[in-house]
Amino acid sequence: MLADAGIALTPAELEGIEVADFGLGRLEEIGLQLVVYVNTERVCAKELVLFPRQTCPEHRHPAVGATPGKEETFRCRRGIVHLHVEGEGEIVLRPGDQYTILPDTLHWFKAGGEGAVVSEFSTQSRDELDVFTDPRIVR
Amino acid sequence: MLADAGIALTPAELEGIEVADFGLGRLEEIGLQLVVYVNTERVCAKELVLFPRQTCPEHRHPAVGATPGKEETFRCRRGIVHLHVEGEGEIVLRPGDQYTILPDTLHWFKAGGEGAVVSEFSTQSRDELDVFTDPRIVR
Repeated sequence: MLADAGIALTPAELEGIEVADFGLGRLEEIGLQLVVYVNTERVCAKELVLFPRQTCPEHRHPAVGATPGKEETFRCRRGIVHLHVEGEGEIVLRPGDQYTILPDTLHWFKAGGEGAVVSEFSTQSRDELDVFTDPRIVR
Repeated sequence: MLADAGIALTPAELEGIEVADFGLGRLEEIGLQLVVYVNTERVCAKELVLFPRQTCPEHRHPAVGATPGKEETFRCRRGIVHLHVEGEGEIVLRPGDQYTILPDTLHWFKAGGEGAVVSEFSTQSRDELDVFTDPRIVR
């Protein structure tokens, strides 16, 4: 799917693709595949790959001490993404569409029937601090 | 070139492509074309497009008050980029290759014979504060 989207990866990146099933064991339905390009104290960029109708479950990125929570912009590259943001309802992202999610705001998203590739531009990513609505989830 | 790289833009983005000739009036030789996706106080993401053998001239991103200078990661999407970084010499970026330039570090870059498309992931972009080595340059 990444190659179809014209995204070149190095062999090390291909080997390092992260597969997150959120501890639920239902990857095809609830999960996410990620390539992390860069994640410093200041900036993070990733490609997110979603299988057809795969969902990334509802979560938020809380503040850490004096640092506000993660701010993230999702930019759809391929496919369709149905993004649900607290207080905003559903936002449909098609290729070239993007949306910025403010810190500590609940959100979840689901790919359309052809899956999706989404670029994420954000502040530092610390996935282990994400707060998921479903208490069974382990990140 | 962006379309060839599989990058979808909205009509507004296509209309808003920024063309920088750095005040030198020699765009084909010294210049840069930019699509700014997002530029908040915390995060910036752009696509940079370079014509064949076009150069972005040497500059650095200094600190602004207590905030360290801009940190930027260049990720080559298409073509070849010859990146020159103070203290590092020349770094050749091919599709899938990337390099992170630390704040306040002099750098310049030039596309190969087929031009280049480069994604930039960075902290806030304030181009008007960039310091160019060539005093004739106006950003």
